[in-house]
Amino acid sequence: MSRTATKAGTSKTEPASGASFAARLNAAAAETESLLDRLLAAGPVEGEIARPHRVVEAMRYTSLGGGKRLRPFLTVETAALFGVKREHALMAGAAIELVHCYSLVHDDLPAMDDDDLRRGRPTAHKKFDEATAILAGDGLLTFAFDVLGRPETHPDATVRIALVTGLARAAGLGGMVGGQMLDLAAEGRFGKSDTPQGEKDVLTLQAMKTGAILKFCCTAGAILGNASAPKRDAVARYGQVIGQAFQIADDLLDVEGDAATLGKAAGKDAAHGKATLVDLLGVAGARARLAQLVKDAESALEPFGADAAILKDAAHFVAERRA
Amino acid sequence: MSRTATKAGTSKTEPASGASFAARLNAAAAETESLLDRLLAAGPVEGEIARPHRVVEAMRYTSLGGGKRLRPFLTVETAALFGVKREHALMAGAAIELVHCYSLVHDDLPAMDDDDLRRGRPTAHKKFDEATAILAGDGLLTFAFDVLGRPETHPDATVRIALVTGLARAAGLGGMVGGQMLDLAAEGRFGKSDTPQGEKDVLTLQAMKTGAILKFCCTAGAILGNASAPKRDAVARYGQVIGQAFQIADDLLDVEGDAATLGKAAGKDAAHGKATLVDLLGVAGARARLAQLVKDAESALEPFGADAAILKDAAHFVAERRA
Repeated sequence: MSRTATKAGTSKTEPASGASFAARLNAAAAETESLLDRLLAAGPVEGEIARPHRVVEAMRYTSLGGGKRLRPFLTVETAALFGVKREHALMAGAAIELVHCYSLVHDDLPAMDDDDLRRGRPTAHKKFDEATAILAGDGLLTFAFDVLGRPETHPDATVRIALVTGLARAAGLGGMVGGQMLDLAAEGRFGKSDTPQGEKDVLTLQAMKTGAILKFCCTAGAILGNASAPKRDAVARYGQVIGQAFQIADDLLDVEGDAATLGKAAGKDAAHGKATLVDLLGVAGARARLAQLVKDAESALEPFGADAAILKDAAHFVAERRA
Repeated sequence: MSRTATKAGTSKTEPASGASFAARLNAAAAETESLLDRLLAAGPVEGEIARPHRVVEAMRYTSLGGGKRLRPFLTVETAALFGVKREHALMAGAAIELVHCYSLVHDDLPAMDDDDLRRGRPTAHKKFDEATAILAGDGLLTFAFDVLGRPETHPDATVRIALVTGLARAAGLGGMVGGQMLDLAAEGRFGKSDTPQGEKDVLTLQAMKTGAILKFCCTAGAILGNASAPKRDAVARYGQVIGQAFQIADDLLDVEGDAATLGKAAGKDAAHGKATLVDLLGVAGARARLAQLVKDAESALEPFGADAAILKDAAHFVAERRA
C-alpha cells in the first residue's frame, strides 16, 4: 500500500517483450530527466523574484537522478496515440512527475511514513532537514502547475487548463492527498472506525493514493491530443486498470520480494497492520486478479490496434516487475 | 517577518476613512467565507473519487472561520476597477486565500515555526496531528489550482491559465516557498553564510515571503479584467508597495504591540535573531518609510482617479492597523 516499489531505482527494468519497450521506457526517462534539469536549473523566470539556493538544491535532489519515470512514459506513449508533439507530452509528463516526487518527499517525513531511504539515498529530511523537506515538497507541487501553465506544454490555453484541473483533482483531497489520509487511517492512527476493512475500502484507498495519478497520466495524453470522448475514456480505463495492477504487483512484492531486490525491507505492510488485496484474496487469488487486469488493460486498448503495442507491453511490465 | 499579524482574528478592523471601508472589507470576507464553505462542502466533483472526512475536516478547520481576508478583498476591489464580475473575482480571491491558509498551516508545523496557536485557536497539528496538518496544507494548495481552473472563475481559458501561472510563481520557489526558506535561513538554521544581513536582503526576503502573494492579489484583478499593460503595471506596483507596508507594520507591531492585542507574544522576531527593517532603520525610520509607502501606493493608483478610493483606504488600513 506504500509507494515503496519506486524505491528500487532505475537499473532493474525488465521488458516484457524485448528491447524496444526497455529502450522507449529509458528514452522517456532520459528526456524527462533532462527536461526537469533544465526547468529547475534556470534562474528566476518572469513573475519570480529569486530562487534561493537551498530550496532549488532540495527540489533538484528530490526530483532528479532516479526513478523509472513510469508516469511521464505513460503520458508520452498515450499522447503518441493521438499524434501529440513529443515535447508537449514531455512537459505534461514532467509536471506529473514533479507531483509524484513531492508526494514521496512528504510521505517520507517523520510524521508520515518516517522513511530514511528512498531509491537507496537518504530521504530529503535526512539529507537536508525536515523544514527544507516540507518546503521542497511544497515547491515541487507548486512548480508542477507552473509547468502545466506554460505555452511549451500546449499552445491552446483550453488544453492547458484541462490539464491543470485534471492534475489538481487527481492529486488533491479527492485523489492522492485523500488516499494518503486513508492510508494513515488504515494503520489505525485515528481509531478503529476509520480503518478500511474490506476489498471495496482497499480498492478505494489504492485508487486514490496511487491510481488517480497513474490514470491521469493516460488521460493527459488524450487531453493533449484533443481525443474524442470514446478514445479518451479508453485510455482512462487503461490507466485505471494499470493503477490497480501496479498496486497488486507492489503488494505481492511486499510479501514475496527479497529486501536486496526491493531496496527496502519486505513485509512492511503486514508490520503496519494494513490490509492489502493479497491479504484479502491470498497470493494465488492476487496473481489471478493481476492476470485479469493485464487482459483488461489490453482490451481497453483495442480501439488503437497495433499503435498501442507499447502500452500493452507497459501493462505486462507493471504487472511482472520484480522491483 | 513572520505572518503573525493575521493571528489576531477578524474583530479589530480599524477603517482609515469611515464605515464604508470596513463594510466593504467585511463584505468581501463574508462572501469569501461563504464561497470557501461551499467549495469545501461539496461531495466529490468530477475527477475526484471520494473526499475522506478527516482531510475535509482539517481543510475546513484551517480555511474557514477566521481572518480579515485581506487578500480576497484586494482581488475583489482591484478587479472592480476593471469591471470584472464580482463572482469571478471572489473565485480567484478564494483560490489565493486557500494558498495563504496552506502556508500558515505548514509554517506553524513543529519543524518550521512550531506555533501552537493561530487566530486564538489550536494550530492544525495541535487540533489534529502533524500528518493531518501536512496533508491538509497539501490539499489546500492543490485545491487552489482546481478552483482557478473552473469556468466559474472566468469563462476565458486564457485568463484562467494566466491566473494559474501567476499564482504558481507568486507561491512557489521564486516567491512564497523561497521566502520561507530565506526566513528559516535568517534564523541561522543553515549556518551564518545564508543569513540575510542588510536592507536589500531583508527586502528580498519579505518581497518573497509575503509580498509576492499580496502583489498577485492585485495583478489577479487586472488579469481577470483584461487590463491594459500600463494599468496592470499600476495595480501591480500598488500591490508591491502594499506588501512592503504590510511587513513594516507587522514588524512595528512586533516590537511595539502588546500581546493581548496581537494575540501572540510581542518581540518574537528579536528572540529569533532575525533582522527586520525596524532593526535596520529604527522605529522612527520605519515609521517614515511606512508613511512614504502609503504615499507611493496612492500615487500608483492615480490612473484610476476616484474609482480607487477604497484601495487608498486599504493602504492606510494596512499601514495603520493595530493587530
